[in-house]
Amino acid sequence: MLPIAIDANGGDRSPAAIVGGALRARDELGVEIVLVGTPDVAPLAGDLPLIEASEVIAMDADPGQSVRRMKDSTLVRAAEAVRDGRASAMISAGNTGATMASALLRMGRISGVKRPAIATPLPVPSGGHTVLLDAGANAECQPDWLLQFAQMGAAFARARYGIDEPRVGLLSIGEEPGKGDALRKDAYGLLAAAGALDAAGGRFIGNVEGRDLLTDDVDVVVTDGFTGNVALKSLEGGMKALVSRLLEAFGASDEARAAADVLMPELLPLYSSLDPENTGGAMLLGVDGVCIISHGSSGETAVVNAVRVARDMVEGGMVDALAAAIAT
Amino acid sequence: MLPIAIDANGGDRSPAAIVGGALRARDELGVEIVLVGTPDVAPLAGDLPLIEASEVIAMDADPGQSVRRMKDSTLVRAAEAVRDGRASAMISAGNTGATMASALLRMGRISGVKRPAIATPLPVPSGGHTVLLDAGANAECQPDWLLQFAQMGAAFARARYGIDEPRVGLLSIGEEPGKGDALRKDAYGLLAAAGALDAAGGRFIGNVEGRDLLTDDVDVVVTDGFTGNVALKSLEGGMKALVSRLLEAFGASDEARAAADVLMPELLPLYSSLDPENTGGAMLLGVDGVCIISHGSSGETAVVNAVRVARDMVEGGMVDALAAAIAT
Repeated sequence: MLPIAIDANGGDRSPAAIVGGALRARDELGVEIVLVGTPDVAPLAGDLPLIEASEVIAMDADPGQSVRRMKDSTLVRAAEAVRDGRASAMISAGNTGATMASALLRMGRISGVKRPAIATPLPVPSGGHTVLLDAGANAECQPDWLLQFAQMGAAFARARYGIDEPRVGLLSIGEEPGKGDALRKDAYGLLAAAGALDAAGGRFIGNVEGRDLLTDDVDVVVTDGFTGNVALKSLEGGMKALVSRLLEAFGASDEARAAADVLMPELLPLYSSLDPENTGGAMLLGVDGVCIISHGSSGETAVVNAVRVARDMVEGGMVDALAAAIAT
Repeated sequence: MLPIAIDANGGDRSPAAIVGGALRARDELGVEIVLVGTPDVAPLAGDLPLIEASEVIAMDADPGQSVRRMKDSTLVRAAEAVRDGRASAMISAGNTGATMASALLRMGRISGVKRPAIATPLPVPSGGHTVLLDAGANAECQPDWLLQFAQMGAAFARARYGIDEPRVGLLSIGEEPGKGDALRKDAYGLLAAAGALDAAGGRFIGNVEGRDLLTDDVDVVVTDGFTGNVALKSLEGGMKALVSRLLEAFGASDEARAAADVLMPELLPLYSSLDPENTGGAMLLGVDGVCIISHGSSGETAVVNAVRVARDMVEGGMVDALAAAIAT
């Protein structure tokens, strides 16, 4: 396997935590890594190879403009490494929009893919994951794009989680086929058509609602990037608010602290499953290469997990599986 | 004050829990109530007056069709009671779409209102509420409707929560003004225009994201009914999933149960603030009368709380405040 390219300058905790995670991933997983970073990364990198770049696209920079203008940026160089066969995958915790734009412009799309989509695995508290896509790549979508998202999402859920025949739901505001806006009604028709998900190995189960996202009633939830991003961030915000109030309650008195200590062995697995460090990040599906989008707050553990996901996707032939899934 | 009309046959636990709640509301709040129900409700109603209706619109019935065809249904009769000056407000835990359609068709809109919207108060775990609208009345929206939702939401937050100058945010997928789809970009321009929220007494603070919904950084969050409904149900589902895993952890062993008992005094206020029984339901803003939409699972306490909200809205002159807020 070719090395996995990691953007050393992307993310709130870059470069130290990113490079630290890269070193850990190399040692713990035995995966070859190549860093893409500015010259000042070199002293941190130890014996990891470094592709040097002179620029860093800021977290809040305009994605399209930055990628067009900053041709020697770490993100653009990382995507080029995949395109040119010097890396098997790219990982960045930097500017999400610029990561997508770099991957799209340098790697190109899988033949037949209309638009790439961000697939985000949501940890279900009772166990397992629900794959939500598009989680933010395309604010406005056409019905046939949603069909392709469903096909790619099903192939992803099969490859990533070993689900034999993933159940695919269309995110709407009621279970009946007629519910939702024009986009949902048209997409429903395409998804319900005979054979729509056959090549992808998935099964359409109809509309699902926001409340189904964290249940084990559905494996892949399809929506436009605006709605998907709002749903994802609403969940993240809700969990964070609730957990921080819980921690307050647990620390309210000596008695409460002692009681919370007793409960910790039960609560830690739950807490750990919700921690973004452990999900390994989202994946940009539909570009002609593996591209992992990590959380901006990624630390070392998140990087290790992202490398694990990237390795699995490369070894499992994810890009070929996606190409096969959208073939109609 | 005229009596408050309650749909005795609406909701999963109707009529028993609804009528029980109506009796409690009358006794505990000293508010006059009139039930609207089928003849078999009479034996439960005690000395509460009953407007008889012969039909009940099912929870999953098509709203538009039902309201047009079932003219002697409890929902249509409740809305007529408000229209005809026999009641000051209507409350239903039944079919949400049919509740909206009944109110809209029988009460009509406040002069100048383009579309009514469902305003749902979200309990913020650290205290207070964020008002989300539209939470599901209009799956597809125009930019100028969102402007009116902002105006009505600000007036509602002032009247309901006594917030002097509510901070109004536009729900999008990034904080910068250009973020989001065409609807968001156009709505942003209208909301940012000088004086847009002056009559409503609110202040536009720009785009907000899903993660801001349960924080105290914003008082009113404006969006289309599709996105709002998905965000609301995602939060509800996420909270439910997390709370049920917590309860599992709390009951995992005798030791855990004992520790959880110690923490209960700290956790109950949080649990209670998240319980839909305690929010009093959502309000349909923009129709020419007070209309409270309660959760389908409403029990007695939810009915009492809904009556409390309805009374406050009537006594506080909510409908006039909304009319003033949208005047430009």
